[in-house]
Amino acid sequence: MSVFPFDLRGFRFCAKNAGIKDDTLDFTVIASDVPASAAAMFTQSRFCGAAIIVGREHVANGKLQAFVINSKNANVATGELGIANIREVVQLVARELDIAPEDILPSSTGVIGRQLPIERLRQAIPGLRHELQLNRPELAAQAIMTTDTHPKWRACRVGNATLVGMAKGSGMIEPNMATMLSYFVTDAAIPAPMLQAFLKEAVDLSFNMVSIDTDTSTSDTVAIMANGLAGAVDSEAFRLALREMAIELAKEIARDGEGATKLVEVTVDQAESFAQAKRVAKAIVNSPLVKTAIFGADPNWGRIAMAIGKCEEQQHIVPERVMIAFGELQMYNGQPLNEADLSALESYLHGNEVTVHVSLGLGEASATVWGCDLSYEYVRINGEYTT
Amino acid sequence: MSVFPFDLRGFRFCAKNAGIKDDTLDFTVIASDVPASAAAMFTQSRFCGAAIIVGREHVANGKLQAFVINSKNANVATGELGIANIREVVQLVARELDIAPEDILPSSTGVIGRQLPIERLRQAIPGLRHELQLNRPELAAQAIMTTDTHPKWRACRVGNATLVGMAKGSGMIEPNMATMLSYFVTDAAIPAPMLQAFLKEAVDLSFNMVSIDTDTSTSDTVAIMANGLAGAVDSEAFRLALREMAIELAKEIARDGEGATKLVEVTVDQAESFAQAKRVAKAIVNSPLVKTAIFGADPNWGRIAMAIGKCEEQQHIVPERVMIAFGELQMYNGQPLNEADLSALESYLHGNEVTVHVSLGLGEASATVWGCDLSYEYVRINGEYTT
Repeated sequence: MSVFPFDLRGFRFCAKNAGIKDDTLDFTVIASDVPASAAAMFTQSRFCGAAIIVGREHVANGKLQAFVINSKNANVATGELGIANIREVVQLVARELDIAPEDILPSSTGVIGRQLPIERLRQAIPGLRHELQLNRPELAAQAIMTTDTHPKWRACRVGNATLVGMAKGSGMIEPNMATMLSYFVTDAAIPAPMLQAFLKEAVDLSFNMVSIDTDTSTSDTVAIMANGLAGAVDSEAFRLALREMAIELAKEIARDGEGATKLVEVTVDQAESFAQAKRVAKAIVNSPLVKTAIFGADPNWGRIAMAIGKCEEQQHIVPERVMIAFGELQMYNGQPLNEADLSALESYLHGNEVTVHVSLGLGEASATVWGCDLSYEYVRINGEYTT
Repeated sequence: MSVFPFDLRGFRFCAKNAGIKDDTLDFTVIASDVPASAAAMFTQSRFCGAAIIVGREHVANGKLQAFVINSKNANVATGELGIANIREVVQLVARELDIAPEDILPSSTGVIGRQLPIERLRQAIPGLRHELQLNRPELAAQAIMTTDTHPKWRACRVGNATLVGMAKGSGMIEPNMATMLSYFVTDAAIPAPMLQAFLKEAVDLSFNMVSIDTDTSTSDTVAIMANGLAGAVDSEAFRLALREMAIELAKEIARDGEGATKLVEVTVDQAESFAQAKRVAKAIVNSPLVKTAIFGADPNWGRIAMAIGKCEEQQHIVPERVMIAFGELQMYNGQPLNEADLSALESYLHGNEVTVHVSLGLGEASATVWGCDLSYEYVRINGEYTT
């Protein structure tokens, strides 16, 4: 993990403990040596965090030079003081790095409803510039974790440039235009409007297709900086690389969902529209009864039918045209198929990846979403989160 | 439980084991001596059960004489054969009771995607008329249970008449126009259109305000028969009695939700509209993160803010105007309040009833919904449901 296989020009990383909650890594800076073109997408929550409010302002002109991220405290529902606190953090980092405060996008993740320990941050930030290192994205990927069980990051080459992406999960995941926290940096030269378009497409097909628990975070942020130090690249190649990397990170978030023991992939095809396919797929992947059955390897495929049926919008669905399969095992095709398959289904559900395939028999649109099972461990983690 | 305190004229009950899955009670008939005016509401699921299809036909004319209910098999996703099977069950009961098949409303609840064991039902039904008894609603309330931990029924007097209601939960509960299974019978004389209006109002304020797990059942049915044998009653008194009884049964369903250790009541007031209040209240009571925090008595009130914020429709919500309280303990009022209250909140959450109160500061509408916590036991029950 510590040997970075590529050369990413002009981006420096650091991670440290600022004592926000305990003694683990909780503060990270990702800074470009030069101003970069940038794009970001944020949570749609009405109770969004203070960092989101400031980040929206700062990315509006398509230019950024650093991401500043703290974990262990979401700085949400903290009123005017919460906003003043994050503005001060941004000011302190700007002064330390000698860059413009408006070129910093801040993010905070962690517990809701508590003020940032601003005094500790005032002490942690000075001297930080000496800790910044090239080619160390794993430092930042580590520091943004909350209940994630491992850091999540990817790197690839696009022409002469490098693209690095990272993300954190792993509960409160039902993105709406963006996921928890995910950052991409590249030394390719990409203009900001193109970056925004590529980011939106990638997010719509990746993070927006992941659900852990239907709970939308107050802190969701996906952001990208392109500092251009490696020059121009083929934009189509970059677009595809970004999309592919976002999907990989999204699947990793699903696989590492709180308490998850299995990655669940649901594909709905033969739908009237992408929206319909996505709606049905999300209803399946979000159903607590489907999720617990998969956790327990209970071959209760009828719950897929239940989840399809509960979609309010699906007035056109005709049970007689529906097909339901797990992996290669077809269970229902307008009527229940041979019950002898139940033991095969039970065996299949004991694997650590479960694929559900539903055909609606109505059209040609399709969608794939990712999620995880619902285990005792999810209940334990979230029954004890702050205590 | 076996001594019925009132006299309900002309309704007879029986409950037996028909061997549908095991040797517990799984088949019940509630029959009136004379045709009764009737009303019913059903699931909105597109994958509704065969009994729902037949029941909708039979109640259309506002007249019924019997409810016939089996548990342990939902007869859902069973194609043409499923419908033929339930029609045969209705025919057999009609012949046995010497009533019209069109005056029978059937219901089925249990596992999805398996055919009814029709041969066993053919053997179980003949002779059933000798088992019917007056004033024994507890028999039926017992036989309709699935994972419920106890039978749920109520009785009250309205003038010279008696009203009896019963219900079953306890998973797959996110009603949409109706809940799992609930039946009311009265010997009051109430015309069918009035019965339908009263039932709709009662259901909208009771069963439609309960959520266990956001999963809408394929078999939801609420039905009422009024056989008139006790004569006319004050219709306003009847309306209020029905509503009150429906709310009591709905709360009992929530308290007995699968794996539940606590009843959770969420009231949202100062909303722009009832729809907004209900939407926000449901978002809170359905949030897995809120539910697990309550289960674990974790004083993580910030998750209420998260759940309010995730309501897509709530574009007018202003965090600065919001108030959040648990019982009498205010936690947030436009900004977080004194953190010293957290230990009081933790103590409060150890009780077996938790009340959440949210004021939006936008208007005068309010709504109250009921649900339960999310425990290890929910995961266990639903990870092992069919195996």
